[in-house]
Amino acid sequence: MQQVTSPAEWFTVRWLDERLVIIDQRKLPEEEVYLSLDDLEDVFTAIRMLMVRGAPAIGIVAAWGMVVAAQGMSVTTIEQLLKGLEEAGRYLISARPTAVNLSWAVNRMLGAAREDGQQPSATIHSVIDRLHREAQAIQSEDEAASYAIGVHLLDLLGDSRNILTHCNAGQLATSRYGTALAPLYVGVERGMKFHVFVDETRPVLQGARLTAWELQRLGVEATLICDNMAASVMSAGKVNAVIVGADRITANGDVANKIGTLNVAILADHFHVPFYVAAPLSTIDLSIATGDEIPIEIRDKEEIISGMGRVIAPRDIDVYNPAFDVTPNEYVTAIVTEKGAALQPFTQSLREQFG
Amino acid sequence: MQQVTSPAEWFTVRWLDERLVIIDQRKLPEEEVYLSLDDLEDVFTAIRMLMVRGAPAIGIVAAWGMVVAAQGMSVTTIEQLLKGLEEAGRYLISARPTAVNLSWAVNRMLGAAREDGQQPSATIHSVIDRLHREAQAIQSEDEAASYAIGVHLLDLLGDSRNILTHCNAGQLATSRYGTALAPLYVGVERGMKFHVFVDETRPVLQGARLTAWELQRLGVEATLICDNMAASVMSAGKVNAVIVGADRITANGDVANKIGTLNVAILADHFHVPFYVAAPLSTIDLSIATGDEIPIEIRDKEEIISGMGRVIAPRDIDVYNPAFDVTPNEYVTAIVTEKGAALQPFTQSLREQFG
Repeated sequence: MQQVTSPAEWFTVRWLDERLVIIDQRKLPEEEVYLSLDDLEDVFTAIRMLMVRGAPAIGIVAAWGMVVAAQGMSVTTIEQLLKGLEEAGRYLISARPTAVNLSWAVNRMLGAAREDGQQPSATIHSVIDRLHREAQAIQSEDEAASYAIGVHLLDLLGDSRNILTHCNAGQLATSRYGTALAPLYVGVERGMKFHVFVDETRPVLQGARLTAWELQRLGVEATLICDNMAASVMSAGKVNAVIVGADRITANGDVANKIGTLNVAILADHFHVPFYVAAPLSTIDLSIATGDEIPIEIRDKEEIISGMGRVIAPRDIDVYNPAFDVTPNEYVTAIVTEKGAALQPFTQSLREQFG
Repeated sequence: MQQVTSPAEWFTVRWLDERLVIIDQRKLPEEEVYLSLDDLEDVFTAIRMLMVRGAPAIGIVAAWGMVVAAQGMSVTTIEQLLKGLEEAGRYLISARPTAVNLSWAVNRMLGAAREDGQQPSATIHSVIDRLHREAQAIQSEDEAASYAIGVHLLDLLGDSRNILTHCNAGQLATSRYGTALAPLYVGVERGMKFHVFVDETRPVLQGARLTAWELQRLGVEATLICDNMAASVMSAGKVNAVIVGADRITANGDVANKIGTLNVAILADHFHVPFYVAAPLSTIDLSIATGDEIPIEIRDKEEIISGMGRVIAPRDIDVYNPAFDVTPNEYVTAIVTEKGAALQPFTQSLREQFG
């Protein structure tokens, strides 16, 4: 892992001069540091240590990570290469076992490698070449999906320019544009102006650290608030729409997302503010009927007690630190994917998006 | 100002061995440090630097501060003493000009001194003696009011044992028992058990730092959560009642309190959880018709950006940091004072409490 020169235009992850390069999200917003991931161990570390985060971005880094792994292998046969890739894939998945996009990307890369390896003309070089193209395809498809989400959300927003968002579902979480922030990127390209209230998003502060930074770089007017100020700004009529991302969406339109999303959804409902969920189709899991079936990951208490530098509570206090909550579909105005806006009833509209 | 030995049983403010002693709330929860305030300057500093906070507690420290000031004066006539007290009072009030209880306590002490000074038998010693008794009366009255609030709230709670609270309206904010936490103190004396979810209360974290510490010392089971987790625990049915304090209550029952209170009130309403406001009668201002007339104090952005030790957002980001919000009376189940529980419609029930 080496620090590389900062590019003119910032990016989350890119294959640059034959190297996999990411921005180190742990250092934001104070420092903008780019790192090359030069071997499998680097890629594992970057995912494990949250240098890269956000479901789509993790998938893309894992895909390129399989290319990096292949290039680093001393193999003489295609069989050895495929075997090595399977091991590398298992290792990468173990970096964050619950990240759905991580295993999805690894398996897609393995499938591509196997397919190429079965061709009569296959060589080690051709398989690696195919891996390279597959990783690029994963990245390009994500970028296209994000852009489409942005276009569809702009349609929904109409004249609404005052947004509130929670956590970071921006370019830092994807290849480009983001999901919840995609309409802002597309809108800025079209010369539109917005104002965004950014929930700081305790305990890990992705809003304060990442979304605020991203919107500043985009030139969008942004105001940071603590999560508990959302009712205050909504009651003052300062918010026309809430847009959030999603970790997982069930067949009935229930939305698992960063803890605090449910608070915002109920407040938006109360103040008659539309509540939009932006996510690629890959986030929707039709095999799960409702949000009740989603297990809630409980995270370490230290994240709350000492995560911000100072110890803020008695060391031995009991702490409840769920990673996300589930917003029932009744509070969701629309779920916006690359296929368009799904509206109530979601059981039908989401199925149609896959049709 | 000198550090003094920690007492067997912790307290917020006390006149102890002829000295005014407070716990330094800035050091909590990591250190339990008691300080004697030995001259007027010490008292000013303690109020100004938030070593003591909470409206009733500030008033009590200011009252004792007038005793400390009188004792430190070199005066030969009652007129000189009264003039010196007026100057001292103005100086103390300037420590936190917006704190209503501070000016209230100072003015009550001045009134008592003037009254005694007008007696034919008055001496410098008798005036100082009267100041001492008046400060003790202010402290005792506050303690009695808090206890009564606790008793009335226990009645309202019935079998409810699972509480959620926001900020700190506990013993640390009063002479004893607190307001929102008073039913827990009284309940523990009666052998009752409770569980309390403690909102950490961004940005200054009074919940995490003070309420969590206080409840631990009281032996009440407490679980710290981030403010944005309230909907999650309410939706899981883990909260039977919300109890909060108040900075100011208007004639119609609108409640100005720590920022984030409105979030909690709307969520409680949504999940059909009773929302109780606990405050002494002195918090109710019948001269103000509705919460719309209460100006919102906007505080420094650094409190959010760097208040917890680490810089958590871009330095130049716009920040909105209101000190409190106003909860409309429609979300308030009851306002509980030392006179009992006022119910809807508050315009009538609050006036009756003063009758």
